[in-house]
Amino acid sequence: MVLPGGIDVHTRLQMPALGMTPADDFFQGTKAALAGGTTMILDHVFPDTGVSLLAAYEQWRERADSTACCDYSLHVDITRWHESIKEELEALVKDKGVNSFLVFMAYKDRCQCTDGQMYEIFSIIRDLGALALVHAENGDIIEEEQRQVLELGITGPEGHVLSHPEEVEAEAAYRAVTIAKQANCPLYITKVMSKGAADVVAQAKRRGVVVFGEPVTASLGTDGSHYWSKNWAKAAAFVTSPPISPDPSTADHLTDLLSSGDLQVTGSAHCTFSTAQKAVGKDNFTLIPEGTNGVEERMAVVWERCVASGKMDENEFVAVTSTNAAKIFNLYPRKGRVAVASDADLVIWNPKTTRIISAKSHNLNVEYNIFEGVECRGAPTVVISQGRVVLEDGNLFVTPGAGRFIPRKTFPDFVYKRIKARNRLAEIHGVPRGLYDGPAHEVIAPAKATSGTPARASCPGKISVPPVRNLHLSGFSLSGSQADDHIARRTAQKIMAPPGGRSNITSLS
Amino acid sequence: MVLPGGIDVHTRLQMPALGMTPADDFFQGTKAALAGGTTMILDHVFPDTGVSLLAAYEQWRERADSTACCDYSLHVDITRWHESIKEELEALVKDKGVNSFLVFMAYKDRCQCTDGQMYEIFSIIRDLGALALVHAENGDIIEEEQRQVLELGITGPEGHVLSHPEEVEAEAAYRAVTIAKQANCPLYITKVMSKGAADVVAQAKRRGVVVFGEPVTASLGTDGSHYWSKNWAKAAAFVTSPPISPDPSTADHLTDLLSSGDLQVTGSAHCTFSTAQKAVGKDNFTLIPEGTNGVEERMAVVWERCVASGKMDENEFVAVTSTNAAKIFNLYPRKGRVAVASDADLVIWNPKTTRIISAKSHNLNVEYNIFEGVECRGAPTVVISQGRVVLEDGNLFVTPGAGRFIPRKTFPDFVYKRIKARNRLAEIHGVPRGLYDGPAHEVIAPAKATSGTPARASCPGKISVPPVRNLHLSGFSLSGSQADDHIARRTAQKIMAPPGGRSNITSLS
Amino acid sequence: MVLPGGIDVHTRLQMPALGMTPADDFFQGTKAALAGGTTMILDHVFPDTGVSLLAAYEQWRERADSTACCDYSLHVDITRWHESIKEELEALVKDKGVNSFLVFMAYKDRCQCTDGQMYEIFSIIRDLGALALVHAENGDIIEEEQRQVLELGITGPEGHVLSHPEEVEAEAAYRAVTIAKQANCPLYITKVMSKGAADVVAQAKRRGVVVFGEPVTASLGTDGSHYWSKNWAKAAAFVTSPPISPDPSTADHLTDLLSSGDLQVTGSAHCTFSTAQKAVGKDNFTLIPEGTNGVEERMAVVWERCVASGKMDENEFVAVTSTNAAKIFNLYPRKGRVAVASDADLVIWNPKTTRIISAKSHNLNVEYNIFEGVECRGAPTVVISQGRVVLEDGNLFVTPGAGRFIPRKTFPDFVYKRIKARNRLAEIHGVPRGLYDGPAHEVIAPAKATSGTPARASCPGKISVPPVRNLHLSGFSLSGSQADDHIARRTAQKIMAPPGGRSNITSLS
Amino acid sequence: MVLPGGIDVHTRLQMPALGMTPADDFFQGTKAALAGGTTMILDHVFPDTGVSLLAAYEQWRERADSTACCDYSLHVDITRWHESIKEELEALVKDKGVNSFLVFMAYKDRCQCTDGQMYEIFSIIRDLGALALVHAENGDIIEEEQRQVLELGITGPEGHVLSHPEEVEAEAAYRAVTIAKQANCPLYITKVMSKGAADVVAQAKRRGVVVFGEPVTASLGTDGSHYWSKNWAKAAAFVTSPPISPDPSTADHLTDLLSSGDLQVTGSAHCTFSTAQKAVGKDNFTLIPEGTNGVEERMAVVWERCVASGKMDENEFVAVTSTNAAKIFNLYPRKGRVAVASDADLVIWNPKTTRIISAKSHNLNVEYNIFEGVECRGAPTVVISQGRVVLEDGNLFVTPGAGRFIPRKTFPDFVYKRIKARNRLAEIHGVPRGLYDGPAHEVIAPAKATSGTPARASCPGKISVPPVRNLHLSGFSLSGSQADDHIARRTAQKIMAPPGGRSNITSLS
Repeated sequence: MVLPGGIDVHTRLQMPALGMTPADDFFQGTKAALAGGTTMILDHVFPDTGVSLLAAYEQWRERADSTACCDYSLHVDITRWHESIKEELEALVKDKGVNSFLVFMAYKDRCQCTDGQMYEIFSIIRDLGALALVHAENGDIIEEEQRQVLELGITGPEGHVLSHPEEVEAEAAYRAVTIAKQANCPLYITKVMSKGAADVVAQAKRRGVVVFGEPVTASLGTDGSHYWSKNWAKAAAFVTSPPISPDPSTADHLTDLLSSGDLQVTGSAHCTFSTAQKAVGKDNFTLIPEGTNGVEERMAVVWERCVASGKMDENEFVAVTSTNAAKIFNLYPRKGRVAVASDADLVIWNPKTTRIISAKSHNLNVEYNIFEGVECRGAPTVVISQGRVVLEDGNLFVTPGAGRFIPRKTFPDFVYKRIKARNRLAEIHGVPRGLYDGPAHEVIAPAKATSGTPARASCPGKISVPPVRNLHLSGFSLSGSQADDHIARRTAQKIMAPPGGRSNITSLS
Repeated sequence: MVLPGGIDVHTRLQMPALGMTPADDFFQGTKAALAGGTTMILDHVFPDTGVSLLAAYEQWRERADSTACCDYSLHVDITRWHESIKEELEALVKDKGVNSFLVFMAYKDRCQCTDGQMYEIFSIIRDLGALALVHAENGDIIEEEQRQVLELGITGPEGHVLSHPEEVEAEAAYRAVTIAKQANCPLYITKVMSKGAADVVAQAKRRGVVVFGEPVTASLGTDGSHYWSKNWAKAAAFVTSPPISPDPSTADHLTDLLSSGDLQVTGSAHCTFSTAQKAVGKDNFTLIPEGTNGVEERMAVVWERCVASGKMDENEFVAVTSTNAAKIFNLYPRKGRVAVASDADLVIWNPKTTRIISAKSHNLNVEYNIFEGVECRGAPTVVISQGRVVLEDGNLFVTPGAGRFIPRKTFPDFVYKRIKARNRLAEIHGVPRGLYDGPAHEVIAPAKATSGTPARASCPGKISVPPVRNLHLSGFSLSGSQADDHIARRTAQKIMAPPGGRSNITSLS
Repeated sequence: MVLPGGIDVHTRLQMPALGMTPADDFFQGTKAALAGGTTMILDHVFPDTGVSLLAAYEQWRERADSTACCDYSLHVDITRWHESIKEELEALVKDKGVNSFLVFMAYKDRCQCTDGQMYEIFSIIRDLGALALVHAENGDIIEEEQRQVLELGITGPEGHVLSHPEEVEAEAAYRAVTIAKQANCPLYITKVMSKGAADVVAQAKRRGVVVFGEPVTASLGTDGSHYWSKNWAKAAAFVTSPPISPDPSTADHLTDLLSSGDLQVTGSAHCTFSTAQKAVGKDNFTLIPEGTNGVEERMAVVWERCVASGKMDENEFVAVTSTNAAKIFNLYPRKGRVAVASDADLVIWNPKTTRIISAKSHNLNVEYNIFEGVECRGAPTVVISQGRVVLEDGNLFVTPGAGRFIPRKTFPDFVYKRIKARNRLAEIHGVPRGLYDGPAHEVIAPAKATSGTPARASCPGKISVPPVRNLHLSGFSLSGSQADDHIARRTAQKIMAPPGGRSNITSLS
Repeated sequence: MVLPGGIDVHTRLQMPALGMTPADDFFQGTKAALAGGTTMILDHVFPDTGVSLLAAYEQWRERADSTACCDYSLHVDITRWHESIKEELEALVKDKGVNSFLVFMAYKDRCQCTDGQMYEIFSIIRDLGALALVHAENGDIIEEEQRQVLELGITGPEGHVLSHPEEVEAEAAYRAVTIAKQANCPLYITKVMSKGAADVVAQAKRRGVVVFGEPVTASLGTDGSHYWSKNWAKAAAFVTSPPISPDPSTADHLTDLLSSGDLQVTGSAHCTFSTAQKAVGKDNFTLIPEGTNGVEERMAVVWERCVASGKMDENEFVAVTSTNAAKIFNLYPRKGRVAVASDADLVIWNPKTTRIISAKSHNLNVEYNIFEGVECRGAPTVVISQGRVVLEDGNLFVTPGAGRFIPRKTFPDFVYKRIKARNRLAEIHGVPRGLYDGPAHEVIAPAKATSGTPARASCPGKISVPPVRNLHLSGFSLSGSQADDHIARRTAQKIMAPPGGRSNITSLS
């Protein structure tokens, strides 16, 4: 069975954490990716303190170009709100081939955005034709929870999951969806880890929001009971945010939604640290560097849980492991397809074989594999990257630096056709009434005017973007005519500016 | 049919707005209340800029004691976060008979709370045994929307509803519920105006959150199509936040949930301004003082929509207009009951009569009645307040100052029995592992530790409150044993401190 | 803590099964009830083949009057549709104190009803002011599944649950709710065993259907994994229909809904058979007599799962174990209340004690207890029945025949106030059009008319009952005016008969 | 914009009704189809009383082959259960190119199936690799409602919708889904007319059921308020089953679900009768022949409501009007695709034009068009059928008999890959216990055994089909081990037949 090579939409192979870098770097991470049938990754650029988005992008390019074994592309994380952010994003979009940016709703006092900042960033992203990625967790609540858990004397990895309850993930997802809908910006939720968050995505999609959800290998292939392992090092290996849910029915629910199209893509969120690195937090779980493995196991785990179990057929497998990612991020049809004009990234998949995942045999630089013992029916037997065989007969033939940076254009059709259609519709008009000329109370100090007065002419660039209000989608008409109005229901929402004249509007009817 | 007098859980008869006070003050408002069958109100104390909670409380008491015609009690709105807030709340609870406090999630740069502040306030409120009331709207999004709508040149009342989309109400309700659950604080959402917000309350209740939702006369008895009225003064009369939904099926949905017990109480949010006062915002809808009428019409509207329509029986009517309010706010059995030992606040209700609401006949100081023309089958024929007949044969006999302040005790059983039971359960324990003594990476500058480190010993009073994590409610066990752990599933969550010794935790299994 | 004695709404202490009678008869069953804090039971009369409803009722009365130790009342099961059923139900309602009748949607070719029969029976029950109880499972599907499972060679108790998938319970509940809504008959689903069925009840309640759901001790206190026990006798002890769900999260979900008011009462469905009796089906699970224990354990299990876990307070516990049952079945305020005029059926409950349920200590005649090993915090310490202490210091003092039959009146307010209000509203009127006088195709044999023609004037008694169509509840107006109709939207649904004359209705517009 | 020609999955151009045939026959109907951009239809063969499925099929072929202007294929309706049905279906599948069969859940005493019959038919269909189509309405309830409405003296078209409440459609859909899941048969619900039924499909899809839902032009493009039109002929034109919902928000909801992939295909259910034909029921709405127009308007209505409104992009439009239909019914890639090897059925679509639907300009033989006045942005400008231009510059060039019958193969991948995967999994095994050898009650007459005993060896062909029970999809393991069982949880469900010997199963633990 020949498939297009997998696309892992989420890796962090150079993520800085307390001055450390991940155990699996671009070389090791892409090697593992290829071993698992993934021929392209999208890594997250995370600018460290004081580094600009552009400078961070260049750091990532430099490192990846010299060491990556498979093609890659880059998301850029917005770690800090600042005045010139619009210019930075524009530059990345226009000159650097980046069309996706992540904002954080967690990590308070570090990279967490306010709702207002999110709205503004989403508006910029929409104007640029890019995608808004969101790390969805409520950082304010997490901070409170962490303090309480630590005050109770709980310092081990179980404290991590105890201070990151599932509800804060679902809450943030709900909020992100609300803001994105208002800003008419396509939304992409990274790392869908809980049933609640997945349901939020599914329901929003049904209401017409342009939203995508990314479950990861960890949420599809294991569960969070391991945080209570007596083996500290093992428990620490599972620490990631949002945490892996301890609810054992989570994976089944996420694969249901992945199979029904409510969730669309899968990533790994691969970001590994060795036990010694994790041990920085041995006395305080909040200091454990976050991240788990998954780049190598993703394809096999999705096959096992979705195809071998009868939830999906092979075409759907290709969609959620490769094609949808290519379409969303505008790599299609170069990637995500088996065709003449596409890149020769191919996998020959054997659905008859069975393998058991283990740290003893994985291609990673870490001591623990969070999928230890998981049995997967189905595995790649041959992997071809850029036309070269990189896996055959169980042997890897990888070349550091062979991976190319794949730039991505803006306004992917798969995402933006609907967004554009909605923009065209956003012609809100006021009710033509003439001037009110009745008595009016005089107010000395209109304190209320400080927010929202027209005088506050910030963000002039906004004006070029029609306000987003898709009346056709709202489930009811906003026209709201009344008996005394003599306005036909259907036309009220398109009322033009009043021709002039004054209406005697204060007389009681 | 004899009923206990109605309790209106939400009025604002002295709400300051741009230096103005409402058209219906304590005298006029309570007179209208009695005319409609309501014998007690709970008014909101809203401290103006620079006024402390206690000082504002005293202002309200002074005004109400001298002019109110029926018994009343007071909620206090928290308009500003500050260090001494805990002391102020304590004083109000212990000395002033207040057991409910409102926080605002909207009105950015004025009284809006952050999520972290809400969590802290909720924690204080829970310790005091009071109720957390929430105005649920996302102020950040509203601000963005208002700016955009104004930039489009829309300045009329329709701009108000266009800039307050329903989704921002549901979003805030969802967030409030999440925070309250984490803080184990009873939550009460004021002014449930939309189907989305009501559904959020209903679903949270089903998941075990101690939450109450308050639809108001306006959301039950009319709809938001009137914002598009060509009559500016009429349209302006409907301006309130959250706005009255333009979705015409809203009232039907809210009455369904009120009938099924998913919503529990009804208020009026009565806060009226004359046309001249509303006209402060004649050129800018953000300056229109917010609020509508409803205190007089509440009982009749609920009867019409719920009882006359066959959704409720009479007992349920009494529950949602009086008894539930008395139980939630700890006025029961003094109020909300027809019994020997209770206050003689009674209504004789005639289900056979039919009246049409109109500004021509209402007992209010405003030119418009938002329920103009609504036909109600059922009305009070006799109203008795404190044993005195105040309404008979259509005549009102009210006495300014006759109304008494009714203090309320903390820890109402109806609300707090479950909260306390959950607190008792919140015995989280860490996993006994001994110390990790394997290799650990050395980190120079643990920047991450700034938030959440145990050293940050703020809020020591918090320690006395067990952290809130109701494992029994979570739908799955957090114990998470594993094959290599030799811990029985059932007992893992109650593991005591380890007896000592070191476990060889770093050896790989 | 003094509580009103428990009311067990569902026992089968004389249920015939293949010629056998239950191991726990009226004496043993009521003794166990008292031991557990239940002072009244409602037993199901199940007419055996060829026995009329009335005759079966008398059999039950005779047996119970002489041996029951606590007060009791009787439901009557309708095991067979026949012409004179209306007369039988009328007699039972008017002369025998029965106000609740059960119909079966399962047990094909035995007592299973068709949908049409259910509609007719529901209509009769509604006219009589009684309650329709339903055993909700799709018997057609079960029969198919049983055959397939047996064909596979599976004959043990696990075959029972394999051939009764949860979906068939939810499906039947959904159908029953639909029929009851159309017939405007109050519905009561017995034995809510699965999450799906419970959700159906909750959603229907929210849409305004007058429906009650009865989870039982078994679904609240254990799970269906035991069907796979290697101990045949133990596995067989769990056989009941609908089966106990193997989904381990079921009990948690049902207690959530019981706590939120979506489910309202609890029964035990106590119907026990000894191992030797169960062994009739040792070679074929379809022959295992159905039923489990629960009458003694019900109160303690509900306390443990709902109150001790913090989901309910004590008042809610009383509601779901006693008061709601009394209100639904019209026993209130004689039963279900602690008051001067009520029966002296009381329980002193100790929330501090802890007991472990075991067959070694239970008051039952069976070898297995399906709650073996379940730990319950909370137990009755004193039980008083009809003013006499029957349990004290762990000792039972019961008297066979002391139990009285408690007759029940029709039209319980708690149930029928809403039903009546909806009947009053059901004034459907046709559109006044005059006669159509255009061309009409001539048809020789209108075969279609065989069903639904007015000529079929069966059920004339039906006419007295207005058809049930609550327009006010439907979420949208049925008036449907159009531009060419000149009918105002609001009034269309109350159009009276046309004044006369012919309209030119065939001319095309 | 070039699109593949539309595929209308549901027409009835020769449907017999009271001896009449539709006004739009194969010639007129396919002509109208082509005018609207539809180049292929799937018509329903409906065997009249006494006609076999095969004979009816031949009748349809004969008529269509001589008069159809575009390609067509045939569904066959199963109007009557009989012993030889399996053979008839086999013949149609193997020799006649039919792979889809419809069963009726309505039309009591005519073609309505019982649940048991549906289960059996679904099992046959699954074995044949065909699709089960269902007309989802509860015929029992409808019959009762019709009688009551007629008894009230309501005889006009409004009586049709009053006697077909939406709930009976949703109920039947829920039941069909339940049965199909148990039989592991792919299900296709024709004519999704209400929000409730659509939600049932969406939720089932999410739970993993292989189910498709077909909204039709009528439910997407108009509403049921017209049943109350004073113009009898107009009102009668809307009579169809399930009826068009009077809820005005229905179309918006259905297009939401169509856009999110919860519904997948669109048909027209085109089946028209002239006013004179409709007038057969002028005195009794149950005699009005059922059916509306829609074959010509379908593409434009879907474009207007979904694409012009911004809910879908063009690719999704092609999917729901053509490609999905081709995949589901195994016409792909011959149909539903623009490619070299596919049939040259093409449409050039103009999204800029606007047309208003009217009976004055439609290509139909009926006086009324149910979409009269509906404005559609978007229309076909050129239509090519089998490589010939049939529409250009507003002129139609159709040829009677040019349409070919397109046979369809079984086991479409799009549908059956998942079905097959689940069949492979369906290896249920009993618990190996050995024989129970304890005491057993002796029973004289095991009446219960009549249903479900292995002796009843009907349907031997069934055995070859593994019973359908997808444990992997069930959300929880059915293994259910217990402490005393010594069975590991993971493996229990794969227990093989017991090796022999007896276990001491009756001893109490």
